[in-house]
Amino acid sequence: MGTELSLALKDAADKVEEALDDLLPDANGPEAQVLEAMRYAAMGGGKRLRPFLTLQSGRLFGVDDETMVRVAAAVECVHVYSLVHDDLPAMDDDDLRRGKPTVHKKYDEATAILTGDALLTLAFEILSDDETHPDPYVRCKLVARLAKAIGARGMVAGQMIDLATENQSPDIGTVTRLQRLKTGELIAFACETGAIVGRASKEARHALEGYAHDLGLAFQMTDDLLDVEGDAEEAGKAVGKDAGRGKATFVDIMGAERARAQAELLSGQAARHLDLFDEKADLLRALTEFITNRQS
Amino acid sequence: MGTELSLALKDAADKVEEALDDLLPDANGPEAQVLEAMRYAAMGGGKRLRPFLTLQSGRLFGVDDETMVRVAAAVECVHVYSLVHDDLPAMDDDDLRRGKPTVHKKYDEATAILTGDALLTLAFEILSDDETHPDPYVRCKLVARLAKAIGARGMVAGQMIDLATENQSPDIGTVTRLQRLKTGELIAFACETGAIVGRASKEARHALEGYAHDLGLAFQMTDDLLDVEGDAEEAGKAVGKDAGRGKATFVDIMGAERARAQAELLSGQAARHLDLFDEKADLLRALTEFITNRQS
Repeated sequence: MGTELSLALKDAADKVEEALDDLLPDANGPEAQVLEAMRYAAMGGGKRLRPFLTLQSGRLFGVDDETMVRVAAAVECVHVYSLVHDDLPAMDDDDLRRGKPTVHKKYDEATAILTGDALLTLAFEILSDDETHPDPYVRCKLVARLAKAIGARGMVAGQMIDLATENQSPDIGTVTRLQRLKTGELIAFACETGAIVGRASKEARHALEGYAHDLGLAFQMTDDLLDVEGDAEEAGKAVGKDAGRGKATFVDIMGAERARAQAELLSGQAARHLDLFDEKADLLRALTEFITNRQS
Repeated sequence: MGTELSLALKDAADKVEEALDDLLPDANGPEAQVLEAMRYAAMGGGKRLRPFLTLQSGRLFGVDDETMVRVAAAVECVHVYSLVHDDLPAMDDDDLRRGKPTVHKKYDEATAILTGDALLTLAFEILSDDETHPDPYVRCKLVARLAKAIGARGMVAGQMIDLATENQSPDIGTVTRLQRLKTGELIAFACETGAIVGRASKEARHALEGYAHDLGLAFQMTDDLLDVEGDAEEAGKAVGKDAGRGKATFVDIMGAERARAQAELLSGQAARHLDLFDEKADLLRALTEFITNRQS
Protein backbone atom coordinates (compact mmCIF):
# COMPACT_ATOMS: atom_id res chain seq x y z
CA MET A 1 0.00 0.00 0.00
CA GLY A 2 2.98 2.31 0.66
CA THR A 3 3.95 2.47 -2.99
CA GLU A 4 0.36 2.70 -4.16
CA LEU A 5 -0.21 5.65 -1.83
CA SER A 6 2.98 7.36 -3.01
CA LEU A 7 1.85 6.97 -6.60
CA ALA A 8 -1.61 8.30 -5.81
CA LEU A 9 -0.17 11.29 -3.96
CA LYS A 10 2.13 11.98 -6.90
CA ASP A 11 -0.79 11.59 -9.31
CA ALA A 12 -2.94 14.06 -7.35
CA ALA A 13 -0.03 16.50 -7.18
CA ASP A 14 0.53 16.28 -10.95
CA LYS A 15 -3.15 16.67 -11.73
CA VAL A 16 -3.65 19.69 -9.50
CA GLU A 17 -0.44 21.25 -10.81
CA GLU A 18 -1.81 20.98 -14.35
CA ALA A 19 -5.18 22.36 -13.29
CA LEU A 20 -3.58 25.29 -11.47
CA ASP A 21 -1.43 26.05 -14.48
CA ASP A 22 -4.62 26.20 -16.50
CA LEU A 23 -6.67 28.17 -13.96
CA LEU A 24 -4.13 30.74 -12.75
CA PRO A 25 -4.11 33.83 -14.97
CA ASP A 26 -1.11 34.39 -17.21
CA ALA A 27 1.30 37.02 -15.92
CA ASN A 28 0.99 39.92 -18.31
CA GLY A 29 -0.13 43.55 -18.25
CA PRO A 30 0.91 46.21 -15.73
CA GLU A 31 -0.56 44.02 -12.97
CA ALA A 32 1.84 41.19 -13.93
CA GLN A 33 3.59 41.15 -10.57
CA VAL A 34 0.62 39.86 -8.57
CA LEU A 35 -0.17 37.28 -11.27
CA GLU A 36 3.44 36.10 -11.26
CA ALA A 37 3.41 35.96 -7.47
CA MET A 38 0.22 33.84 -7.51
CA ARG A 39 1.99 31.31 -9.73
CA TYR A 40 5.16 31.54 -7.64
CA ALA A 41 3.20 30.71 -4.50
CA ALA A 42 0.87 28.08 -5.92
CA MET A 43 2.91 26.12 -8.42
CA GLY A 44 5.36 23.29 -7.86
CA GLY A 45 5.20 22.99 -4.15
CA GLY A 46 3.95 21.18 -1.13
CA LYS A 47 2.62 17.71 -0.54
CA ARG A 48 -0.71 18.56 -2.17
CA LEU A 49 -2.37 16.66 0.61
CA ARG A 50 -5.66 18.51 0.25
CA PRO A 51 -5.92 17.88 -3.50
CA PHE A 52 -5.28 14.19 -2.80
CA LEU A 53 -8.07 14.14 -0.22
CA THR A 54 -10.37 15.92 -2.67
CA LEU A 55 -9.74 13.46 -5.49
CA GLN A 56 -10.06 10.43 -3.22
CA SER A 57 -13.24 11.80 -1.73
CA GLY A 58 -14.72 12.08 -5.21
CA ARG A 59 -13.73 8.51 -6.06
CA LEU A 60 -15.65 7.20 -3.04
CA PHE A 61 -18.83 8.37 -4.73
CA GLY A 62 -17.92 7.68 -8.33
CA VAL A 63 -17.33 11.33 -9.25
CA ASP A 64 -14.94 11.73 -12.18
CA ASP A 65 -11.48 13.22 -11.63
CA GLU A 66 -12.14 15.96 -14.18
CA THR A 67 -14.64 17.59 -11.86
CA MET A 68 -12.74 16.90 -8.69
CA VAL A 69 -9.44 18.23 -9.93
CA ARG A 70 -11.01 21.67 -10.38
CA VAL A 71 -12.41 21.47 -6.87
CA ALA A 72 -8.96 20.36 -5.69
CA ALA A 73 -7.37 23.37 -7.37
CA ALA A 74 -9.81 25.66 -5.55
CA VAL A 75 -8.98 24.00 -2.24
CA GLU A 76 -5.26 24.38 -2.93
CA CYS A 77 -5.72 28.07 -3.83
CA VAL A 78 -7.26 28.59 -0.39
CA HIS A 79 -4.47 26.65 1.30
CA VAL A 80 -1.79 28.69 -0.49
CA TYR A 81 -3.58 31.98 0.27
CA SER A 82 -3.58 31.06 3.96
CA LEU A 83 0.15 30.29 3.84
CA VAL A 84 1.03 33.53 2.02
CA HIS A 85 -0.87 35.67 4.53
CA ASP A 86 0.31 33.57 7.48
CA ASP A 87 3.95 34.08 6.46
CA LEU A 88 3.65 37.90 6.46
CA PRO A 89 5.82 39.88 8.91
CA ALA A 90 2.75 40.97 10.86
CA MET A 91 1.69 37.34 11.23
CA ASP A 92 4.25 34.53 11.59
CA ASP A 93 7.06 36.39 9.81
CA ASP A 94 8.53 33.48 7.89
CA ASP A 95 11.26 33.80 5.27
CA LEU A 96 11.10 30.29 3.86
CA ARG A 97 8.21 28.22 2.52
CA ARG A 98 8.34 25.00 0.55
CA GLY A 99 12.11 25.52 0.23
CA LYS A 100 11.78 28.94 -1.41
CA PRO A 101 11.69 32.53 -0.13
CA THR A 102 8.18 33.44 0.99
CA VAL A 103 6.15 35.71 -1.31
CA HIS A 104 6.80 38.90 0.68
CA LYS A 105 10.53 38.10 0.63
CA LYS A 106 10.60 37.34 -3.09
CA TYR A 107 8.40 40.34 -3.96
CA ASP A 108 7.17 42.64 -1.21
CA GLU A 109 4.54 42.76 1.50
CA ALA A 110 1.92 44.59 -0.55
CA THR A 111 2.23 42.03 -3.32
CA ALA A 112 1.94 39.20 -0.80
CA ILE A 113 -1.26 40.65 0.66
CA LEU A 114 -2.77 41.04 -2.82
CA THR A 115 -1.58 37.56 -3.85
CA GLY A 116 -3.43 35.99 -0.95
CA ASP A 117 -6.53 38.06 -1.67
CA ALA A 118 -6.49 37.05 -5.33
CA LEU A 119 -5.98 33.33 -4.61
CA LEU A 120 -8.85 33.33 -2.14
CA THR A 121 -11.08 35.02 -4.71
CA LEU A 122 -9.95 32.64 -7.45
CA ALA A 123 -11.07 29.67 -5.35
CA PHE A 124 -14.64 30.97 -5.39
CA GLU A 125 -14.40 31.83 -9.08
CA ILE A 126 -13.41 28.24 -9.87
CA LEU A 127 -16.12 26.66 -7.72
CA SER A 128 -18.89 28.85 -9.14
CA ASP A 129 -17.83 28.28 -12.76
CA ASP A 130 -20.15 25.97 -14.68
CA GLU A 131 -17.14 24.14 -16.06
CA THR A 132 -16.65 22.74 -12.57
CA HIS A 133 -20.10 21.15 -12.44
CA PRO A 134 -23.22 21.52 -14.57
CA ASP A 135 -25.57 21.71 -11.57
CA PRO A 136 -25.63 25.17 -9.93
CA TYR A 137 -27.01 23.59 -6.76
CA VAL A 138 -23.80 21.57 -6.39
CA ARG A 139 -21.59 24.56 -7.19
CA CYS A 140 -23.42 26.71 -4.66
CA LYS A 141 -23.12 24.05 -1.96
CA LEU A 142 -19.36 23.92 -2.56
CA VAL A 143 -19.09 27.71 -2.33
CA ALA A 144 -21.25 27.90 0.78
CA ARG A 145 -19.48 25.08 2.57
CA LEU A 146 -16.02 26.42 1.71
CA ALA A 147 -16.89 29.95 2.83
CA LYS A 148 -18.12 28.63 6.17
CA ALA A 149 -15.02 26.48 6.65
CA ILE A 150 -12.51 29.25 6.08
CA GLY A 151 -14.31 32.36 7.35
CA ALA A 152 -14.53 34.21 10.64
CA ARG A 153 -15.86 31.14 12.47
CA GLY A 154 -13.52 28.78 10.63
CA MET A 155 -9.93 29.06 9.43
CA VAL A 156 -9.66 32.80 10.12
CA ALA A 157 -10.85 32.23 13.69
CA GLY A 158 -8.11 29.62 14.07
CA GLN A 159 -5.50 32.10 12.88
CA MET A 160 -6.84 34.73 15.28
CA ILE A 161 -6.69 32.35 18.25
CA ASP A 162 -3.19 31.31 17.21
CA LEU A 163 -2.09 34.96 17.39
CA ALA A 164 -4.09 35.77 20.51
CA THR A 165 -2.60 32.89 22.48
CA GLU A 166 1.04 33.68 21.64
CA ASN A 167 3.18 33.76 24.76
CA GLN A 168 0.27 32.47 26.76
CA SER A 169 -0.27 29.00 28.07
CA PRO A 170 -3.50 27.89 26.47
CA ASP A 171 -4.90 24.58 27.68
CA ILE A 172 -5.21 21.50 25.53
CA GLY A 173 -8.86 22.27 24.75
CA THR A 174 -7.99 25.71 23.36
CA VAL A 175 -5.08 24.38 21.28
CA THR A 176 -7.24 21.56 19.93
CA ARG A 177 -9.98 23.98 18.89
CA LEU A 178 -7.38 26.37 17.44
CA GLN A 179 -5.92 23.61 15.27
CA ARG A 180 -9.31 22.20 14.30
CA LEU A 181 -10.20 25.65 12.97
CA LYS A 182 -6.83 26.70 11.57
CA THR A 183 -6.01 23.56 9.60
CA GLY A 184 -8.84 21.10 10.28
CA GLU A 185 -11.69 23.00 8.66
CA LEU A 186 -10.10 23.16 5.22
CA ILE A 187 -9.02 19.51 5.45
CA ALA A 188 -12.59 18.65 6.37
CA PHE A 189 -13.90 20.58 3.39
CA ALA A 190 -11.49 18.72 1.09
CA CYS A 191 -12.72 15.39 2.49
CA GLU A 192 -16.37 16.33 2.09
CA THR A 193 -16.21 17.68 -1.47
CA GLY A 194 -16.80 14.24 -3.01
CA ALA A 195 -19.83 13.76 -0.80
CA ILE A 196 -21.21 17.15 -1.86
CA VAL A 197 -20.64 16.58 -5.57
CA GLY A 198 -21.75 12.94 -5.37
CA ARG A 199 -24.85 13.85 -3.35
CA ALA A 200 -23.89 11.28 -0.74
CA SER A 201 -25.97 10.28 2.28
CA LYS A 202 -25.72 12.15 5.56
CA GLU A 203 -24.14 9.04 7.10
CA ALA A 204 -21.32 9.05 4.53
CA ARG A 205 -20.78 12.77 5.05
CA HIS A 206 -20.56 12.37 8.81
CA ALA A 207 -18.08 9.53 8.44
CA LEU A 208 -15.87 11.75 6.31
CA GLU A 209 -16.16 14.59 8.81
CA GLY A 210 -15.00 12.24 11.56
CA TYR A 211 -12.14 11.02 9.40
CA ALA A 212 -11.07 14.58 8.56
CA HIS A 213 -11.28 15.68 12.16
CA ASP A 214 -9.00 12.94 13.48
CA LEU A 215 -6.69 13.07 10.48
CA GLY A 216 -6.31 16.86 10.83
CA LEU A 217 -5.34 16.61 14.49
CA ALA A 218 -2.92 13.73 13.86
CA PHE A 219 -1.42 15.77 11.04
CA GLN A 220 -0.96 18.82 13.28
CA MET A 221 0.54 16.84 16.14
CA THR A 222 3.05 15.32 13.71
CA ASP A 223 3.76 18.82 12.40
CA ASP A 224 4.48 20.00 15.92
CA LEU A 225 6.76 17.00 16.49
CA LEU A 226 8.61 17.74 13.25
CA ASP A 227 8.93 21.39 14.27
CA VAL A 228 10.75 20.30 17.41
CA GLU A 229 12.74 17.40 15.98
CA GLY A 230 12.85 18.13 12.28
CA ASP A 231 15.50 19.22 9.88
CA ALA A 232 14.95 22.56 8.13
CA GLU A 233 16.31 21.35 4.83
CA GLU A 234 14.04 18.36 4.71
CA ALA A 235 10.99 20.32 5.87
CA GLY A 236 11.65 23.08 3.33
CA LYS A 237 10.72 25.66 5.90
CA ALA A 238 12.05 27.00 9.16
CA VAL A 239 11.73 24.54 12.04
CA GLY A 240 11.89 25.00 15.80
CA LYS A 241 10.21 28.35 15.32
CA ASP A 242 6.89 27.73 17.01
CA ALA A 243 8.49 27.53 20.44
CA GLY A 244 10.73 30.50 19.58
CA ARG A 245 7.75 32.75 18.89
CA GLY A 246 5.80 31.66 21.90
CA LYS A 247 3.30 29.44 20.12
CA ALA A 248 1.72 26.74 22.18
CA THR A 249 2.12 23.39 20.42
CA PHE A 250 0.76 19.97 21.25
CA VAL A 251 4.32 18.95 22.08
CA ASP A 252 4.64 21.72 24.70
CA ILE A 253 1.43 20.74 26.36
CA MET A 254 1.61 16.95 26.10
CA GLY A 255 5.33 16.29 25.74
CA ALA A 256 6.79 14.62 22.64
CA GLU A 257 6.09 11.06 23.70
CA ARG A 258 2.43 11.57 24.53
CA ALA A 259 1.95 13.71 21.42
CA ARG A 260 3.33 10.94 19.26
CA ALA A 261 1.18 8.31 20.95
CA GLN A 262 -1.89 10.53 20.58
CA ALA A 263 -1.16 11.16 16.89
CA GLU A 264 -1.02 7.41 16.30
CA LEU A 265 -4.20 6.84 18.24
CA LEU A 266 -6.01 9.51 16.23
CA SER A 267 -4.67 8.13 12.99
CA GLY A 268 -6.10 4.68 13.79
CA GLN A 269 -9.36 6.29 14.81
CA ALA A 270 -9.47 8.24 11.54
CA ALA A 271 -9.14 5.00 9.55
CA ARG A 272 -12.00 3.38 11.47
CA HIS A 273 -14.38 6.19 10.47
CA LEU A 274 -14.08 4.76 6.97
CA ASP A 275 -15.44 1.34 7.94
CA LEU A 276 -18.67 1.92 6.06
CA PHE A 277 -16.78 2.37 2.79
CA ASP A 278 -15.38 -0.52 0.79
CA GLU A 279 -11.92 -0.85 -0.73
CA LYS A 280 -12.43 2.47 -2.53
CA ALA A 281 -11.32 4.05 0.76
CA ASP A 282 -8.09 2.05 1.03
CA LEU A 283 -5.84 4.95 0.03
CA LEU A 284 -7.56 7.26 2.51
CA ARG A 285 -6.94 4.58 5.14
CA ALA A 286 -3.30 4.27 4.10
CA LEU A 287 -2.89 8.02 4.37
CA THR A 288 -3.59 7.95 8.09
CA GLU A 289 -0.40 5.97 8.69
CA PHE A 290 1.59 8.01 6.23
CA ILE A 291 0.59 11.20 8.05
CA THR A 292 2.08 10.15 11.37
CA ASN A 293 5.19 8.50 9.89
CA ARG A 294 6.24 11.29 7.54
CA GLN A 295 9.57 13.03 8.03
CA SER A 296 8.62 16.41 6.53
CA MET B 1 -34.99 65.02 -6.66
CA GLY B 2 -32.19 66.15 -4.35
CA THR B 3 -34.21 65.38 -1.23
CA GLU B 4 -35.61 62.19 -2.66
CA LEU B 5 -32.09 61.00 -3.45
CA SER B 6 -30.86 61.92 0.01
CA LEU B 7 -33.70 59.96 1.55
CA ALA B 8 -33.03 56.97 -0.70
CA LEU B 9 -29.33 57.03 0.14
CA LYS B 10 -30.18 57.20 3.83
CA ASP B 11 -32.68 54.38 3.41
CA ALA B 12 -30.13 52.15 1.66
CA ALA B 13 -27.55 52.94 4.35
CA ASP B 14 -30.02 52.06 7.12
CA LYS B 15 -31.10 48.85 5.45
CA VAL B 16 -27.57 47.61 4.78
CA GLU B 17 -26.54 48.57 8.31
CA GLU B 18 -29.32 46.40 9.68
CA ALA B 19 -28.42 43.54 7.34
CA LEU B 20 -24.74 43.73 8.26
CA ASP B 21 -25.61 43.73 11.94
CA ASP B 22 -27.55 40.55 11.30
CA LEU B 23 -24.97 38.89 9.05
CA LEU B 24 -21.72 39.74 10.84
CA PRO B 25 -20.87 37.17 13.49
CA ASP B 26 -21.19 38.19 17.14
CA ALA B 27 -17.88 38.95 18.82
CA ASN B 28 -17.38 36.14 21.31
CA GLY B 29 -14.94 33.29 21.95
CA PRO B 30 -11.14 33.49 21.92
CA GLU B 31 -11.32 34.72 18.30
CA ALA B 32 -13.44 37.71 19.41
CA GLN B 33 -10.90 40.30 18.29
CA VAL B 34 -11.26 39.61 14.58
CA LEU B 35 -15.05 39.47 14.89
CA GLU B 36 -15.06 42.79 16.75
CA ALA B 37 -12.74 44.29 14.13
CA MET B 38 -15.06 43.15 11.32
CA ARG B 39 -17.91 45.04 12.97
CA TYR B 40 -15.67 48.03 13.70
CA ALA B 41 -14.72 48.24 10.02
CA ALA B 42 -18.10 47.51 8.49
CA MET B 43 -20.66 49.17 10.73
CA GLY B 44 -21.78 52.76 10.84
CA GLY B 45 -19.65 54.23 8.15
CA GLY B 46 -19.34 55.51 4.65
CA LYS B 47 -21.81 56.75 2.10
CA ARG B 48 -23.00 53.20 1.36
CA LEU B 49 -22.99 54.12 -2.29
CA ARG B 50 -22.64 50.51 -3.46
CA PRO B 51 -25.58 49.26 -1.37
CA PHE B 52 -27.67 52.11 -2.81
CA LEU B 53 -26.70 51.07 -6.35
CA THR B 54 -27.52 47.45 -5.53
CA LEU B 55 -30.98 48.24 -4.17
CA GLN B 56 -31.80 50.60 -7.03
CA SER B 57 -30.58 48.06 -9.56
CA GLY B 58 -32.97 45.50 -8.09
CA ARG B 59 -35.89 47.91 -8.24
CA LEU B 60 -35.35 48.41 -11.97
CA PHE B 61 -36.34 44.77 -12.45
CA GLY B 62 -38.92 44.47 -9.73
CA VAL B 63 -36.73 42.49 -7.35
CA ASP B 64 -37.74 42.89 -3.73
CA ASP B 65 -35.50 44.78 -1.30
CA GLU B 66 -35.31 41.77 1.01
CA THR B 67 -33.20 39.89 -1.51
CA MET B 68 -31.22 42.87 -2.68
CA VAL B 69 -30.28 44.05 0.79
CA ARG B 70 -28.43 40.78 1.40
CA VAL B 71 -26.64 41.21 -1.92
CA ALA B 72 -25.88 44.80 -0.92
CA ALA B 73 -24.41 43.61 2.37
CA ALA B 74 -22.14 41.22 0.46
CA VAL B 75 -21.02 44.04 -1.84
CA GLU B 76 -20.31 46.26 1.15
CA CYS B 77 -18.31 43.49 2.86
CA VAL B 78 -16.08 43.37 -0.22
CA HIS B 79 -15.76 47.14 -0.29
CA VAL B 80 -14.80 47.27 3.39
CA TYR B 81 -12.32 44.38 2.99
CA SER B 82 -10.62 46.30 0.18
CA LEU B 83 -10.38 49.42 2.36
CA VAL B 84 -8.99 47.53 5.37
CA HIS B 85 -6.25 45.88 3.29
CA ASP B 86 -5.61 49.05 1.29
CA ASP B 87 -5.04 51.02 4.50
CA LEU B 88 -2.32 48.64 5.75
CA PRO B 89 1.20 50.03 6.26
CA ALA B 90 2.53 47.88 3.39
CA MET B 91 -0.14 49.33 1.09
CA ASP B 92 -1.35 52.94 1.44
CA ASP B 93 -0.47 53.25 5.14
CA ASP B 94 -3.48 55.26 6.25
CA ASP B 95 -4.29 56.07 9.86
CA LEU B 96 -7.79 57.42 9.38
CA ARG B 97 -10.83 55.97 7.62
CA ARG B 98 -14.41 57.14 7.80
CA GLY B 99 -13.36 59.48 10.60
CA LYS B 100 -12.01 56.69 12.81
CA PRO B 101 -8.59 55.06 13.26
CA THR B 102 -8.03 52.40 10.60
CA VAL B 103 -8.32 48.76 11.69
CA HIS B 104 -4.58 48.18 12.00
CA LYS B 105 -4.30 51.35 14.12
CA LYS B 106 -7.23 50.42 16.37
CA TYR B 107 -6.12 46.77 16.67
CA ASP B 108 -2.94 45.60 14.91
CA GLU B 109 -1.75 44.64 11.45
CA ALA B 110 -2.34 40.91 11.84
CA THR B 111 -5.92 41.54 12.93
CA ALA B 112 -6.45 43.90 9.98
CA ILE B 113 -5.20 41.29 7.49
CA LEU B 114 -7.51 38.66 8.99
CA THR B 115 -10.42 41.11 9.14
CA GLY B 116 -10.14 41.75 5.41
CA ASP B 117 -9.83 38.04 4.69
CA ALA B 118 -12.90 37.26 6.77
CA LEU B 119 -15.03 40.02 5.21
CA LEU B 120 -14.13 38.86 1.71
CA THR B 121 -15.06 35.30 2.63
CA LEU B 122 -18.29 36.44 4.27
CA ALA B 123 -19.38 38.11 1.03
CA PHE B 124 -19.29 34.74 -0.74
CA GLU B 125 -20.97 33.03 2.19
CA ILE B 126 -23.86 35.49 2.00
CA LEU B 127 -24.28 35.23 -1.78
CA SER B 128 -24.24 31.42 -1.78
CA ASP B 129 -26.73 31.15 1.09
CA ASP B 130 -30.19 30.03 0.00
CA GLU B 131 -31.71 32.75 2.16
CA THR B 132 -30.38 35.23 -0.38
CA HIS B 133 -32.25 33.67 -3.30
CA PRO B 134 -34.09 30.37 -3.75
CA ASP B 135 -32.58 29.67 -7.19
CA PRO B 136 -29.01 28.29 -7.01
CA TYR B 137 -28.45 29.40 -10.61
CA VAL B 138 -28.92 33.03 -9.55
CA ARG B 139 -26.75 32.62 -6.45
CA CYS B 140 -23.99 31.02 -8.49
CA LYS B 141 -24.12 33.79 -11.08
CA LEU B 142 -23.73 36.37 -8.33
CA VAL B 143 -20.75 34.51 -6.87
CA ALA B 144 -19.10 34.01 -10.26
CA ARG B 145 -19.61 37.58 -11.38
CA LEU B 146 -18.37 39.02 -8.09
CA ALA B 147 -15.28 36.80 -8.05
CA LYS B 148 -14.38 37.91 -11.55
CA ALA B 149 -14.92 41.58 -10.71
CA ILE B 150 -12.69 41.62 -7.66
CA GLY B 151 -10.02 39.03 -8.49
CA ALA B 152 -6.61 39.05 -10.12
CA ARG B 153 -7.98 40.52 -13.34
CA GLY B 154 -10.33 42.89 -11.53
CA MET B 155 -10.07 44.89 -8.32
CA VAL B 156 -6.82 43.22 -7.18
CA ALA B 157 -5.21 44.02 -10.55
CA GLY B 158 -6.24 47.65 -10.03
CA GLN B 159 -4.58 47.69 -6.61
CA MET B 160 -1.45 46.13 -8.07
CA ILE B 161 -1.24 48.71 -10.86
CA ASP B 162 -1.84 51.44 -8.30
CA LEU B 163 1.20 50.26 -6.34
CA ALA B 164 3.31 49.52 -9.39
CA THR B 165 2.84 53.00 -10.83
CA GLU B 166 3.74 54.87 -7.64
CA ASN B 167 6.31 57.57 -8.32
CA GLN B 168 5.96 56.96 -12.01
CA SER B 169 4.14 59.04 -14.56
CA PRO B 170 1.53 56.70 -15.99
CA ASP B 171 -0.44 58.02 -18.94
CA ILE B 172 -4.15 58.74 -18.88
CA GLY B 173 -4.92 55.34 -20.41
CA THR B 174 -3.12 53.48 -17.62
CA VAL B 175 -4.72 55.57 -14.88
CA THR B 176 -8.16 55.11 -16.44
CA ARG B 177 -7.72 51.33 -16.58
CA LEU B 178 -6.29 51.32 -13.04
CA GLN B 179 -9.34 53.13 -11.69
CA ARG B 180 -11.79 51.10 -13.75
CA LEU B 181 -10.35 47.98 -12.14
CA LYS B 182 -9.68 49.32 -8.66
CA THR B 183 -13.04 50.95 -8.00
CA GLY B 184 -15.06 50.55 -11.19
CA GLU B 185 -15.39 46.76 -11.24
CA LEU B 186 -17.10 46.53 -7.84
CA ILE B 187 -19.36 49.48 -8.69
CA ALA B 188 -20.24 47.70 -11.94
CA PHE B 189 -21.07 44.53 -10.06
CA ALA B 190 -23.32 46.48 -7.68
CA CYS B 191 -25.14 48.00 -10.66
CA GLU B 192 -25.58 44.64 -12.40
CA THR B 193 -26.84 42.65 -9.41
CA GLY B 194 -30.47 43.58 -10.06
CA ALA B 195 -30.12 42.47 -13.68
CA ILE B 196 -28.65 39.13 -12.56
CA VAL B 197 -31.31 38.48 -9.94
CA GLY B 198 -34.09 39.83 -12.16
CA ARG B 199 -32.87 37.81 -15.18
CA ALA B 200 -32.83 40.97 -17.27
CA SER B 201 -32.11 41.17 -20.99
CA LYS B 202 -28.58 41.53 -22.30
CA GLU B 203 -29.49 45.01 -23.48
CA ALA B 204 -30.47 46.10 -19.98
CA ARG B 205 -27.30 44.57 -18.55
CA HIS B 206 -25.12 46.39 -21.05
CA ALA B 207 -26.84 49.68 -20.30
CA LEU B 208 -26.08 49.22 -16.61
CA GLU B 209 -22.47 48.34 -17.39
CA GLY B 210 -22.13 51.57 -19.36
CA TYR B 211 -23.76 53.53 -16.56
CA ALA B 212 -21.46 51.95 -13.97
CA HIS B 213 -18.38 52.54 -16.07
CA ASP B 214 -18.99 56.26 -16.52
CA LEU B 215 -20.27 56.73 -12.99
CA GLY B 216 -17.20 54.99 -11.56
CA LEU B 217 -14.80 57.23 -13.45
CA ALA B 218 -16.75 60.39 -12.59
CA PHE B 219 -16.71 59.25 -8.96
CA GLN B 220 -12.96 58.70 -9.00
CA MET B 221 -12.20 62.02 -10.67
CA THR B 222 -14.27 63.77 -8.04
CA ASP B 223 -12.41 61.81 -5.37
CA ASP B 224 -9.11 63.00 -6.80
CA LEU B 225 -10.39 66.58 -6.86
CA LEU B 226 -11.50 66.29 -3.24
CA ASP B 227 -8.12 64.82 -2.32
CA VAL B 228 -6.47 67.97 -3.64
CA GLU B 229 -9.02 70.52 -2.51
CA GLY B 230 -10.82 68.75 0.31
CA ASP B 231 -10.95 69.16 4.01
CA ALA B 232 -9.77 66.18 6.09
CA GLU B 233 -12.43 66.61 8.70
CA GLU B 234 -15.25 66.63 6.19
CA ALA B 235 -13.78 63.73 4.20
CA GLY B 236 -13.25 61.68 7.37
CA LYS B 237 -9.92 60.51 6.04
CA ALA B 238 -6.52 61.97 5.23
CA VAL B 239 -6.54 64.22 2.16
CA GLY B 240 -3.78 65.52 -0.07
CA LYS B 241 -2.04 62.18 0.45
CA ASP B 242 -2.18 60.78 -3.06
CA ALA B 243 0.24 63.35 -4.38
CA GLY B 244 2.38 62.98 -1.25
CA ARG B 245 2.88 59.27 -1.85
CA GLY B 246 3.56 59.61 -5.53
CA LYS B 247 0.20 58.36 -6.80
CA ALA B 248 -0.83 59.54 -10.21
CA THR B 249 -4.29 61.07 -10.03
CA PHE B 250 -6.58 62.33 -12.76
CA VAL B 251 -5.96 65.82 -11.43
CA ASP B 252 -2.18 65.47 -11.91
CA ILE B 253 -2.59 64.32 -15.45
CA MET B 254 -5.47 66.52 -16.59
CA GLY B 255 -5.31 69.47 -14.23
CA ALA B 256 -8.17 70.30 -11.84
CA GLU B 257 -10.23 72.23 -14.34
CA ARG B 258 -10.21 69.58 -17.04
CA ALA B 259 -10.76 66.84 -14.50
CA ARG B 260 -13.85 68.61 -13.20
CA ALA B 261 -15.17 69.17 -16.71
CA GLN B 262 -14.52 65.54 -17.61
CA ALA B 263 -16.26 64.29 -14.45
CA GLU B 264 -19.34 66.32 -15.37
CA LEU B 265 -19.26 65.05 -18.92
CA LEU B 266 -19.04 61.45 -17.73
CA SER B 267 -21.81 61.99 -15.25
CA GLY B 268 -24.13 63.22 -18.01
CA GLN B 269 -23.09 60.31 -20.19
CA ALA B 270 -23.78 57.88 -17.33
CA ALA B 271 -27.33 59.19 -17.03
CA ARG B 272 -27.97 58.77 -20.75
CA HIS B 273 -27.12 55.05 -20.55
CA LEU B 274 -30.34 54.75 -18.56
CA ASP B 275 -32.55 56.07 -21.37
CA LEU B 276 -34.09 52.66 -21.98
CA PHE B 277 -35.39 52.54 -18.42
CA ASP B 278 -38.47 54.43 -17.28
CA GLU B 279 -38.83 56.58 -14.19
CA LYS B 280 -37.73 53.64 -12.05
CA ALA B 281 -34.18 54.78 -12.92
CA ASP B 282 -34.71 58.39 -11.78
CA LEU B 283 -32.71 58.00 -8.58
CA LEU B 284 -29.83 56.37 -10.46
CA ARG B 285 -29.96 59.36 -12.82
CA ALA B 286 -30.01 61.81 -9.92
CA LEU B 287 -27.01 60.07 -8.41
CA THR B 288 -24.82 61.01 -11.37
CA GLU B 289 -25.13 64.69 -10.47
CA PHE B 290 -24.77 64.06 -6.77
CA ILE B 291 -21.49 62.20 -7.40
CA THR B 292 -19.78 65.14 -9.05
CA ASN B 293 -21.20 67.77 -6.71
CA ARG B 294 -20.43 66.05 -3.40
CA GLN B 295 -18.07 67.70 -0.91
CA SER B 296 -16.77 64.53 0.76
